[in-house]
Amino acid sequence: MTPGEVDRNGLEVLARAECLRLLEQTTLGRVGVTVGALPAVLPVNYRLVEDRIVFRTSDGSKLDAATRNAVVAFEVDEMEPIGHTGWSVMVTGLTREVTDASELEALELANIPRWAPVGGERIVEISTDMISGRRIGHARPPERRGAP
Amino acid sequence: MTPGEVDRNGLEVLARAECLRLLEQTTLGRVGVTVGALPAVLPVNYRLVEDRIVFRTSDGSKLDAATRNAVVAFEVDEMEPIGHTGWSVMVTGLTREVTDASELEALELANIPRWAPVGGERIVEISTDMISGRRIGHARPPERRGAP
Repeated sequence: MTPGEVDRNGLEVLARAECLRLLEQTTLGRVGVTVGALPAVLPVNYRLVEDRIVFRTSDGSKLDAATRNAVVAFEVDEMEPIGHTGWSVMVTGLTREVTDASELEALELANIPRWAPVGGERIVEISTDMISGRRIGHARPPERRGAP
Repeated sequence: MTPGEVDRNGLEVLARAECLRLLEQTTLGRVGVTVGALPAVLPVNYRLVEDRIVFRTSDGSKLDAATRNAVVAFEVDEMEPIGHTGWSVMVTGLTREVTDASELEALELANIPRWAPVGGERIVEISTDMISGRRIGHARPPERRGAP
């Protein structure tokens, strides 16, 4: 869909640049993966570094096993219940472990936060090539209602 | 793992009753599904009604297609970045559309919120039989560090 348009659910479609700007503002996201053939959604702290989602996993953890060269979803949202405004951004991409020493050093400088107090030795990134976002509120009313 | 224990990542394992109590406190969750063979994480407003997650979908939407008798993950979290405290709860279960008139009436009274301004005609529920949760902070230090 074209950025600025309102989708069938009355949500404003966000442009890539706006999605990236929103991803830069927060550090709590969720990774959608498969664990033991079942879907799972796991919270992670992350940082957006040069248009890539970067987060830590702990060697041998569920998150670690599920993000070894896997296609995953990554989601961030924010919602203000009183005014019923908010947004959500989703990235779909292949995970890649960062192992190159100079890359790791550059990321250390970006100070990637960790969700869990222990672990987080492995650094994993997801490209944001596939990204989409929606905003509630501040949008024009939808042009059509209900299902087509 | 046993509730009250600290897992390998230093996170406190929450009991079922505590997970349900936390699910009752908020109304913004995320559903982990498969859309076109790719993982996706979609935000939903929900309510916990008699130990079931209940949310709305819009007929013909992505969320709708992905939650028709599907096994999904459902996740809620809260994080307080300054004190680095927080929790997350995940439910894994089969979705079921609520179509029975008396059931729908009972749910109407529960006032299920909707994320999108348009749609939300279908009411979907997930059983919380499979539930798990973790808490950061206020926990005993982990008994071992790093990978086994």
